Amino acid sequence: MIVVSHRGPYSFTRNPDGGFDARRGAGGVVSALSPLLARLGDDERALWVAAAIGDGDRAAVRAGAASAPGIDLALLDLDEVQHRLHYDVVSNSVLWFLHHGLFDLPRRPRFDARAREAWDAYVAVNAGFAECIAERARPGEVVLVQDYQLALVPGMLRERRPDVPVVHFTHTPFCGPSSIRVLPDHMAQALCRSMASGPAGFHTRRWAAAFAASAREVLGPGAGDTTFAASFGPDLDDLRATAASAETAAATADLDDLLGDRLMIFRTDRIEPSKNIVRGFAAYDLLLEEHPEWRGRVVFVASIYPSRQGLAEYLAYANEVDRAAARVNERWSTGDWQPVVVDAEDAFARSVAGLLRYDALLVNPIKDGLNLVAKEGPALNRRGGVLCLSREAGAYDEMGDGALAVHPYDLVQTAGALHEALSMPAGERDRRAALLAERAVARTPAMWLDDQLARAGGPAGA
Amino acid sequence: MIVVSHRGPYSFTRNPDGGFDARRGAGGVVSALSPLLARLGDDERALWVAAAIGDGDRAAVRAGAASAPGIDLALLDLDEVQHRLHYDVVSNSVLWFLHHGLFDLPRRPRFDARAREAWDAYVAVNAGFAECIAERARPGEVVLVQDYQLALVPGMLRERRPDVPVVHFTHTPFCGPSSIRVLPDHMAQALCRSMASGPAGFHTRRWAAAFAASAREVLGPGAGDTTFAASFGPDLDDLRATAASAETAAATADLDDLLGDRLMIFRTDRIEPSKNIVRGFAAYDLLLEEHPEWRGRVVFVASIYPSRQGLAEYLAYANEVDRAAARVNERWSTGDWQPVVVDAEDAFARSVAGLLRYDALLVNPIKDGLNLVAKEGPALNRRGGVLCLSREAGAYDEMGDGALAVHPYDLVQTAGALHEALSMPAGERDRRAALLAERAVARTPAMWLDDQLARAGGPAGA
Repeated sequence: MIVVSHRGPYSFTRNPDGGFDARRGAGGVVSALSPLLARLGDDERALWVAAAIGDGDRAAVRAGAASAPGIDLALLDLDEVQHRLHYDVVSNSVLWFLHHGLFDLPRRPRFDARAREAWDAYVAVNAGFAECIAERARPGEVVLVQDYQLALVPGMLRERRPDVPVVHFTHTPFCGPSSIRVLPDHMAQALCRSMASGPAGFHTRRWAAAFAASAREVLGPGAGDTTFAASFGPDLDDLRATAASAETAAATADLDDLLGDRLMIFRTDRIEPSKNIVRGFAAYDLLLEEHPEWRGRVVFVASIYPSRQGLAEYLAYANEVDRAAARVNERWSTGDWQPVVVDAEDAFARSVAGLLRYDALLVNPIKDGLNLVAKEGPALNRRGGVLCLSREAGAYDEMGDGALAVHPYDLVQTAGALHEALSMPAGERDRRAALLAERAVARTPAMWLDDQLARAGGPAGA
Repeated sequence: MIVVSHRGPYSFTRNPDGGFDARRGAGGVVSALSPLLARLGDDERALWVAAAIGDGDRAAVRAGAASAPGIDLALLDLDEVQHRLHYDVVSNSVLWFLHHGLFDLPRRPRFDARAREAWDAYVAVNAGFAECIAERARPGEVVLVQDYQLALVPGMLRERRPDVPVVHFTHTPFCGPSSIRVLPDHMAQALCRSMASGPAGFHTRRWAAAFAASAREVLGPGAGDTTFAASFGPDLDDLRATAASAETAAATADLDDLLGDRLMIFRTDRIEPSKNIVRGFAAYDLLLEEHPEWRGRVVFVASIYPSRQGLAEYLAYANEVDRAAARVNERWSTGDWQPVVVDAEDAFARSVAGLLRYDALLVNPIKDGLNLVAKEGPALNRRGGVLCLSREAGAYDEMGDGALAVHPYDLVQTAGALHEALSMPAGERDRRAALLAERAVARTPAMWLDDQLARAGGPAGA
């Protein structure tokens, strides 16, 4: 089996001895697939094709040292300018914004000459991946292509290697038919044609239906009928190992010191416009305004860390997040109580400590492919914590029954959900927490992998 | 028959004699319906219910002087605060933005306590209209309710007066099912329930289908199956009278002086984010960059006038428009040629002079219910001018065959369409112009009115 993703399972840095250290990467795809693939026997050993990202990766590739335990690794040493246009411009400033509905349409996007150049780079990078896979795939070997950065690979690969079964899986939402028209025709057609040329997976039926409707809009009736929906939850062993670590214990002790016997609202997110962090703070502000009984009795701990800082949009949003947190603190702080505590350190153990400890977990994205935190939280939490979950997160399909629904644009409703979470009687909390804990791990990474293999016509169990 | 719209057919100002002058209002509804209704016989005389807008209207109402030739007029003297919340906040900052896809979703909308208050005002104003109509409608009299500011009237009126056939007609686009979820549930439900409670008309099948899909999303299967599509074109007599006026002759002479033998690209729009004026200038800039042959040989005359200046969004957008025009002029102007000429005067005769004279008419909205300019231009133009028309305008359904399609986000494509328009051989221009002139007036206001009456079960010809 060949797994293909933009970011590989390991990143490399040169160590003082002149060798390279491999460090496991972050992100849903990697955390779902790495442990699984590493457990396969030698005769089933998988190849993972990804881009070399950063100087360490590139140096490791050039030194022939980009290898990892249990997995064969092919890191593509892409042209740096092309790679930047592929990743920063097309993938992250166009496709990510499109599928999450983040465009301020009177102003952006603007498909000018530079955007054409960026699209050519996106095509070239996808072609580079397709070429590498075409050369290395054994006859009939299943290829699983992951996510929106590589949406053209399935079509390109099927042309070069019709013998190879290819599945594409999208981890973001997919935009609907009126939004796909925002893309220039040639881009919309290339994306839909490639993805619709074979099995196209999404985390929920909702995104699958949106893709199918977009494909019909762009390509005509009948297109887009090869979609499937398959989600996954956290790798529980992996998560429990982190929860049992010394780092988590230290972070837990820090939290206990901070909170005392106060209740805790928690969130953990990259600082990213789709995560809706600003409205989360505004809803908390409204909660404190409308329910004076919570003043001094609750702390909102936000484990939010910078992301994509090279993009102006992200810097602007990070500023707005800072100001929104500061506004709440300026308005409500007392001598011995700070209502919002921002933890900007991107350390998984600190997130895990928060997930173990929350009384209410706020996950309020304006749109999200799945949102793994909405499953990791209930899988870990030890206090009968309540999940306040946006109905626009893919995970809502599975977790909605036990969660309190959050309407991401409706601050009054969100504040109401937070109040309900903090006020919920213990019996009701425990009943919901038990249901959520079960749902969180009902779909394992192995089941998700099997679904993809089944669509490829490959073995049903891997 | 009773016609209901937010803005009435006439606005009133006190004159020096202490009486009131009535002046015909602007806007598609008024220009389509006023001449028709004024022509009806005394026994068919229509009642027009609208809001009193501004001090002049209110004073005329209070003095019992709000009357108009051939039409009975009922202007509602609404509570000023409620009316402002109804109009500025809900109608123009929420519903208009929603249906035209103008929200910068990471930031707006924010449904906070103030937004709830504004929604209550929207409900109250709609109830005020419904009450006035319920009191005045004769048994079985047809009521035609116009547009998004009055979307709750049909439902309210049907409850009070089940004997009265009510039709609602929307002049904007309608948002699709993933966007309707942006509204708080109670708002989305109230709007969809009212509009889906009887015939709901739109300018194109596309908006009708979007409403039906949104109604199903919000209310469940089966909702929204009472839609119909019916558009209209300009009232040709009205338009020709303006074209023959002294004001138009003067404006035409001004244009001739300005242009000499240069070609003319023209647009006429309110300054409004959905009109996509900034990208229009950017595409023209690209045209001048990529096709040096047009430098000095074409002038882009933009008849664009301020709108909704009380809203911060509109002031910001007007600044961006100014800067975009200035950028082109700074980059390309020569001693005897200014590439962009902005005419900010809101005078219909000046627009008409431009429509008579253009070589290329740019109508590139990011979304538009119909866009009457796309029909007025071809109906009037005398030079075989080419229509460059956004495929996101409702009028594209009828005019697309003869127009050059514009992709509103794709500057390269838009610049290409402008180049093609300016370069088109005379034979092809004339063939297209003849087709467009025919299509522009194929659907008369009378046909559109008949379609509404037919849906109401009223007389087929009015």
